[in-house]
Amino acid sequence: MKREHTDRKYAAELQDLRERILLMAGRVEQMINQAVESVVTRDIDLARRTIQQDSKVNRDEIETDELCLLILAKWQPMATDLRFITQALKMVTDMERIGDLAVNICERAIDLGIDPPLKPFIDVPRMAEIAESMIRDAVDAFVEGDADKAQDVLDRDDEVDELYRKVFDELVKIMREDESKVERGIQVQAVAKLLERMADHCTNLAEQVIFLVRGEDVRHVGKLGKQ
Amino acid sequence: MKREHTDRKYAAELQDLRERILLMAGRVEQMINQAVESVVTRDIDLARRTIQQDSKVNRDEIETDELCLLILAKWQPMATDLRFITQALKMVTDMERIGDLAVNICERAIDLGIDPPLKPFIDVPRMAEIAESMIRDAVDAFVEGDADKAQDVLDRDDEVDELYRKVFDELVKIMREDESKVERGIQVQAVAKLLERMADHCTNLAEQVIFLVRGEDVRHVGKLGKQ
Repeated sequence: MKREHTDRKYAAELQDLRERILLMAGRVEQMINQAVESVVTRDIDLARRTIQQDSKVNRDEIETDELCLLILAKWQPMATDLRFITQALKMVTDMERIGDLAVNICERAIDLGIDPPLKPFIDVPRMAEIAESMIRDAVDAFVEGDADKAQDVLDRDDEVDELYRKVFDELVKIMREDESKVERGIQVQAVAKLLERMADHCTNLAEQVIFLVRGEDVRHVGKLGKQ
Repeated sequence: MKREHTDRKYAAELQDLRERILLMAGRVEQMINQAVESVVTRDIDLARRTIQQDSKVNRDEIETDELCLLILAKWQPMATDLRFITQALKMVTDMERIGDLAVNICERAIDLGIDPPLKPFIDVPRMAEIAESMIRDAVDAFVEGDADKAQDVLDRDDEVDELYRKVFDELVKIMREDESKVERGIQVQAVAKLLERMADHCTNLAEQVIFLVRGEDVRHVGKLGKQ
């Protein structure tokens, strides 16, 4: 009876960890959305509010780390769980960085100010949309241990890279034609670059998930099994 | 006698972990150095060779992760050691990302090719020099548990940010004066931006160290002590 109670408490703490990670991912996703919205709609207030949200994401990382440490110290998990927890520590680091990048986009929104855009934003919001779906799916894949879903995230990175190159080429053209647009062009290019970097982070997340799932199947027996 | 032997083996594995982290930091530091060297001297061969080194850094991350997992599973360390190991998992993630950024710089070097530079490189190599010292000192501070040394790394980030702004302003001026230089200007700006991002990662590393050291002193008793 006692043992069962203990197991239930342990399972509950692992579940808490999963939920926290999903919650953090949701928060970061919202930050990306609002950051790009603030650029497109030239909403400096929204940019400022989004910057403030970053402290919650930073807090998420610290609290998740603490929970991981607590679970490790209290339950000394083995095998799959141990791998999941150590991976969680790495995942939240990446997510926190993505939050920082969203802040950087907000800073660009503030720099760009309320002046009319160089050209209508089409590809930049599309990049943001893909990046949001990438973080959502990478973290879902992690929590569910779904390597196929993670693989799907990797494929989307190519799409983001392609959009970035397209935006880059267009901006170079605009800047060449009108030197007064160089500074603003660079700001917009920076936003696109930040989105491309977010997608890179999501790729890292997804790669880690694939490694985690494969590690369970392939390497676990050979390595941790030896202890 | 048996206990002592066990303790010695455990201490040796922790020492191995420390050494691996230092080795990885050294490799990343060298990559930064060579990447910027390849831009400045327009040495495409060096850029290509440096890109190849990244696979070693990726390997470093995986092997260090495995060692952390092994130590956790085998010895179930507590308190300070547990915190050190979970932090190591996060540190190597950041270091691996810095390696990726060095690869990105090499790609810019290849894009820029062997054409003469827009202007002599002075601030960009200076930025690289600071970034190298930042990663070195952040990782030393981690291994030595030296919060003061980590604090010192944070201060250097401001210097890098300032250099970046200086490079950015100069490049905007060059691109405005001569539209044919826009594309190359953006490439050089990207290199400076990548160095600024490396410094951000080093700042993250240093912040983690300060948190780790303070965590030992301040929060450890209150949190993990409760288990």
